[in-house]
Amino acid sequence: MGALAAGIARETLAAEKYFPVKADQSLFETINRVKDPANKTPLEKSHGPVITAPKTVKAGEPFAVEVSVGEVVHSMGPAHWIEFIELNIGNEPAARVDFQPRGYASPKATFTVVLTKESAPSGKVTLIAHQRCNLHGYWEGSLDVTVT
Amino acid sequence: MGALAAGIARETLAAEKYFPVKADQSLFETINRVKDPANKTPLEKSHGPVITAPKTVKAGEPFAVEVSVGEVVHSMGPAHWIEFIELNIGNEPAARVDFQPRGYASPKATFTVVLTKESAPSGKVTLIAHQRCNLHGYWEGSLDVTVT
Amino acid sequence: MGALAAGIARETLAAEKYFPVKADQSLFETINRVKDPANKTPLEKSHGPVITAPKTVKAGEPFAVEVSVGEVVHSMGPAHWIEFIELNIGNEPAARVDFQPRGYASPKATFTVVLTKESAPSGKVTLIAHQRCNLHGYWEGSLDVTVT
Amino acid sequence: MGALAAGIARETLAAEKYFPVKADQSLFETINRVKDPANKTPLEKSHGPVITAPKTVKAGEPFAVEVSVGEVVHSMGPAHWIEFIELNIGNEPAARVDFQPRGYASPKATFTVVLTKESAPSGKVTLIAHQRCNLHGYWEGSLDVTVT
Repeated sequence: MGALAAGIARETLAAEKYFPVKADQSLFETINRVKDPANKTPLEKSHGPVITAPKTVKAGEPFAVEVSVGEVVHSMGPAHWIEFIELNIGNEPAARVDFQPRGYASPKATFTVVLTKESAPSGKVTLIAHQRCNLHGYWEGSLDVTVT
Repeated sequence: MGALAAGIARETLAAEKYFPVKADQSLFETINRVKDPANKTPLEKSHGPVITAPKTVKAGEPFAVEVSVGEVVHSMGPAHWIEFIELNIGNEPAARVDFQPRGYASPKATFTVVLTKESAPSGKVTLIAHQRCNLHGYWEGSLDVTVT
Repeated sequence: MGALAAGIARETLAAEKYFPVKADQSLFETINRVKDPANKTPLEKSHGPVITAPKTVKAGEPFAVEVSVGEVVHSMGPAHWIEFIELNIGNEPAARVDFQPRGYASPKATFTVVLTKESAPSGKVTLIAHQRCNLHGYWEGSLDVTVT
Repeated sequence: MGALAAGIARETLAAEKYFPVKADQSLFETINRVKDPANKTPLEKSHGPVITAPKTVKAGEPFAVEVSVGEVVHSMGPAHWIEFIELNIGNEPAARVDFQPRGYASPKATFTVVLTKESAPSGKVTLIAHQRCNLHGYWEGSLDVTVT
């Protein structure tokens, strides 16, 4: 089976990688997502990006989009830190915040987003946030917004 | 006089640069700042970063820092746009937001900042925001915060 | 089976996302890699990051790491472009180049890397390059380097 | 005199800023440039971006642009490091490399640049490189290229 075979291939690849720091390599092999929002694991609670935005917005009018890593904000320090938060409007990049390991800024930020009718041909867009943790890999959170 | 001579030298250098787009080269020769906050020019109103933060904060406790380019938020489009907003704690980089010329995000963002006693040896730090406009160069805004 | 179920779940999620531009959503659901380097598809040829670096390097001595997206360098333009190339030393971020959709720079860059003995506890490290294409998602290429 | 008065105003502003680390604040008040390329100071030697590129290039054909901070490559470490190298085609941003304070990558990189006739309306463009050092501020190097 395609997906199964690919899963096995990925684990093999992961096993062959050399990291400077001991980390769970499988977290670096894919884009991680919270599996069950009603029952988050501790790792998902601290790493899954949480997007807060209005359910419905007006085309051409700016609105605030807060992205937090995670529902408990991730700590920051040279040994374990969040490198960036990336905000995409579906497939299109919108903005990205880069953080410093020293930790003057915590991984929570608010963007000012403006959507046009053209950016939501179906009447909806999916806000997609990514973050990267040096020990726990890539994570994604998403939220649909209706554009009127 | 040193400063005067340097001023002349800078203008000479500026005159010798070749830009793809017609722009006021002197705005690219230095870090621009609002000269008189009580009497901003239209260019200063749309380009000077405006920082909003508490006057006094507690060491170790996160607080919000909003940075807006400028007091009227700058428009975004492929021909004229804001590339980034950079937030520094005095000399130390804290975070930076990169924007896209397509303009899904407007150049206004809120960071979550945490200051320690060590980051404010004098009891104060200066928050320094930079932005870069493709037609109007580098701009700086700053705000002092007391850390208790 | 876990991997198979996860594959199905991912496709369902993908189907529910709203993108401004028509794109193959499955490419945005995971980190894409070249499946068979000896038989690359056209998409893999133009999107898989290709890393060129020495097989063996000396600790403490700088060496060049070229990353190209892909073996035929990807074109750049506002409608279809490469947002960034990210270079990691295993799990640790090393450097990232951000590009502009206007395309003054092509998605090929050379970094100057220095590895210490501590960065290669096993004697090897994996250089991992990521890129993001606005129409074809996240891609990874990797290369092992021996550190003596 | 305008330039002289501005010089004095800038020094006053600088004196009023609060930095976490003891640093020469005047280096953060402007964009620093090498004053006399034939007689660089030690600070200029280690901080002035050095651009290496062909004198003449053909429109539409990619060429390599190396940027090094500085002629002796700047060291990297959490206490003193180079945050980024930014490459502009005159007033237009082309690409930027972000570095990590841990120092897996040194501040020297090669970009692949493509210039069109439109990007050089006068037949020449100025490549402008910026870098930021957490202790020694913003620096610029530039180089003119003829486009045929």
